[in-house]
Amino acid sequence: MLGIDDEKFIRGKIPMTKREIRILTLVNAQIGTNDIVVDIGAGTGSISIEAAKIANKGRVYAVEKNSEGVKLIEQNAEKFSVKNITVINATAPEGLSKISKIDVAIIGGSGGFLEEILSAINNKIKVGGRIVLNCITIQTLANALGWLKFHQEYKYDAVQVQINRFKNLGHYDMAEALNPVHIVTAVKISEMQASNVLNFYAKYERRVVCEI
Amino acid sequence: MLGIDDEKFIRGKIPMTKREIRILTLVNAQIGTNDIVVDIGAGTGSISIEAAKIANKGRVYAVEKNSEGVKLIEQNAEKFSVKNITVINATAPEGLSKISKIDVAIIGGSGGFLEEILSAINNKIKVGGRIVLNCITIQTLANALGWLKFHQEYKYDAVQVQINRFKNLGHYDMAEALNPVHIVTAVKISEMQASNVLNFYAKYERRVVCEI
Amino acid sequence: MLGIDDEKFIRGKIPMTKREIRILTLVNAQIGTNDIVVDIGAGTGSISIEAAKIANKGRVYAVEKNSEGVKLIEQNAEKFSVKNITVINATAPEGLSKISKIDVAIIGGSGGFLEEILSAINNKIKVGGRIVLNCITIQTLANALGWLKFHQEYKYDAVQVQINRFKNLGHYDMAEALNPVHIVTAVKISEMQASNVLNFYAKYERRVVCEI
Amino acid sequence: MLGIDDEKFIRGKIPMTKREIRILTLVNAQIGTNDIVVDIGAGTGSISIEAAKIANKGRVYAVEKNSEGVKLIEQNAEKFSVKNITVINATAPEGLSKISKIDVAIIGGSGGFLEEILSAINNKIKVGGRIVLNCITIQTLANALGWLKFHQEYKYDAVQVQINRFKNLGHYDMAEALNPVHIVTAVKISEMQASNVLNFYAKYERRVVCEI
Repeated sequence: MLGIDDEKFIRGKIPMTKREIRILTLVNAQIGTNDIVVDIGAGTGSISIEAAKIANKGRVYAVEKNSEGVKLIEQNAEKFSVKNITVINATAPEGLSKISKIDVAIIGGSGGFLEEILSAINNKIKVGGRIVLNCITIQTLANALGWLKFHQEYKYDAVQVQINRFKNLGHYDMAEALNPVHIVTAVKISEMQASNVLNFYAKYERRVVCEI
Repeated sequence: MLGIDDEKFIRGKIPMTKREIRILTLVNAQIGTNDIVVDIGAGTGSISIEAAKIANKGRVYAVEKNSEGVKLIEQNAEKFSVKNITVINATAPEGLSKISKIDVAIIGGSGGFLEEILSAINNKIKVGGRIVLNCITIQTLANALGWLKFHQEYKYDAVQVQINRFKNLGHYDMAEALNPVHIVTAVKISEMQASNVLNFYAKYERRVVCEI
Repeated sequence: MLGIDDEKFIRGKIPMTKREIRILTLVNAQIGTNDIVVDIGAGTGSISIEAAKIANKGRVYAVEKNSEGVKLIEQNAEKFSVKNITVINATAPEGLSKISKIDVAIIGGSGGFLEEILSAINNKIKVGGRIVLNCITIQTLANALGWLKFHQEYKYDAVQVQINRFKNLGHYDMAEALNPVHIVTAVKISEMQASNVLNFYAKYERRVVCEI
Repeated sequence: MLGIDDEKFIRGKIPMTKREIRILTLVNAQIGTNDIVVDIGAGTGSISIEAAKIANKGRVYAVEKNSEGVKLIEQNAEKFSVKNITVINATAPEGLSKISKIDVAIIGGSGGFLEEILSAINNKIKVGGRIVLNCITIQTLANALGWLKFHQEYKYDAVQVQINRFKNLGHYDMAEALNPVHIVTAVKISEMQASNVLNFYAKYERRVVCEI
């Protein structure tokens, strides 16, 4: 069942998606038993492992550029005896090149190449497929929403999730904050139509550019 | 799969547990296929219905004092063609009297009788059983944590969850806040021992009373 | 003294900057007694009025495009007997054209012309001057931060503020969420140098564009 | 002017009230020039120092049990050349015994003796006086609200404040969460009347006790 405790995972110095965010991300991903899932910026593999347990007749491709991360993913896959994860030690979108078909894409990290990653996924994902992003920076969130507004073949929603965990302080309980995370969930509802960009310009009278 | 959209439920004026809270509550409840689940303060039945889909060989008892709520639960059960919910139109703990065994208790509302409800559940729940509370008031949270500190046969954790949902504002996205909810999750790890209260007094040198 | 209760202001349908956000915004603005302050998107005038009380030997220019807002600002100025506010019924940056010198600029709304507004302010504000923005959308925040990264003659910080107000629920207290607001505070630390943009490109290897 | 940056204070290992919380606390305290202010659990003295600058013809009594804290308060008072702070190295309420009259009481820490502290303050504070509490635990908050509901000679409100500060992550900006703090603000609106407790019992049909 979903919701492994954070402490159960073998962890290095790499930041890990916290349990509550992991749960909401995986539920939003609506992974099926036979699905092909890509987990981009897989980190410690916590999301890949829970995804692999759901897609137990499918496969999860965990793309992670950091070799320490790759080791952790493999160690955690072994610890939780998950067999259907393929770890790809590469940056994205390059790491996606060998994957022909994607049902669900989860993006935990984009290394500043979000648009390239979204384009690569978009070429491999079918109608009904889902993309779920965890954004910890404002720019990633703004860029993700900007891309989705341009690609009207996707329906999306976005939430900010802030979790405060209570810990004992003597015999009292105080809230300890986790950093807020934005979860963007997009469903491909149609094939790209040439008209979309035109629709978009018809809909949005002006162009806002945030350059950083 | 978990995570029905809020809009899919038939709703009245009764407040409904929002999707993200519902998901985290149900995952923390770790419901099994054959479990007996009680949902106290079931409201529109959104939690009962998702619980019943998980415990599809078990049963969910939805306890709701409000007759409008009872109607909504029945309507939603029919809409989602869930057959293993028994609606009990009563206040708690009275509504629990006919239930002999509880595997999981979810408390969405306690009507100011939290301690009586927790005691009644405690008498029917076995080691390994879980109690998950959604607290929207400080006093319910404090009372729940106070009860759990006294009943050391339970292991518990608590989080505050704040969700901001983005909505379109022209071609921008603004965050709309949902009210924060506290989720308290308790697992019964042993039978009550007479020594617990003594341990408690040994551990906590003084008694804090908040009367309201 | 700072911190007028929200209910004290005459309000229409126009959204008002809530008290806690208003306080933090005004403190970050570090307004001096003799300062010239512009309040762009002044709404009900709540910020203008508290700013005018601080800059009691200076002047506040309240720029508001909405005529209902203009009426409310004038009514509130009268109610709080504040004499040093000039209301400008115009959009920004046009509404700033007659103002030659700005010590502090507060931006509560930018109507999608944030960059034009920031440029106009930048031409009128001296070293040591401050710009404080309240952003309720992700795009405004991202654009503000993007502009500030390009204009390294400014030092900035940004916070997200989420306020939950407790209200009585019977004899209990429940938290009601206000929508989160981002407060961006920028101080002009030097005159623009031609080198800044070059520095910027030296510092940031690539350009991220989010178009919406 | 209010709002000294956190880094400007000399700090030890003692937790310090963060700038945004300090600002809102001090504005809620509505301190006057000639006021007698007590700061209970003064910690590093950040609140005492800003309070002393406002009450520049009055006096701030900084009560701190921890000797490291006492040293920090004295060092910070010297750094910010504030002369009207008296540091009392004691626990509360004992440390209040020599203070005959209080205009404003700020409670940053109560060491588990909140009710005794509130009673002691209540005996020394006049109608119109204010008590502002910063609560980081649920029990302190619940106890403070419980005390205030019993003492209807006070009008109170309470907010939870959650601040996320943006820090640079490469050329992006990510939100870092500070722990949420509850600010309870009470104004004494009348002298205690014998009838209050009766009114209270008339108003609240039952007694909720949370013992921890």
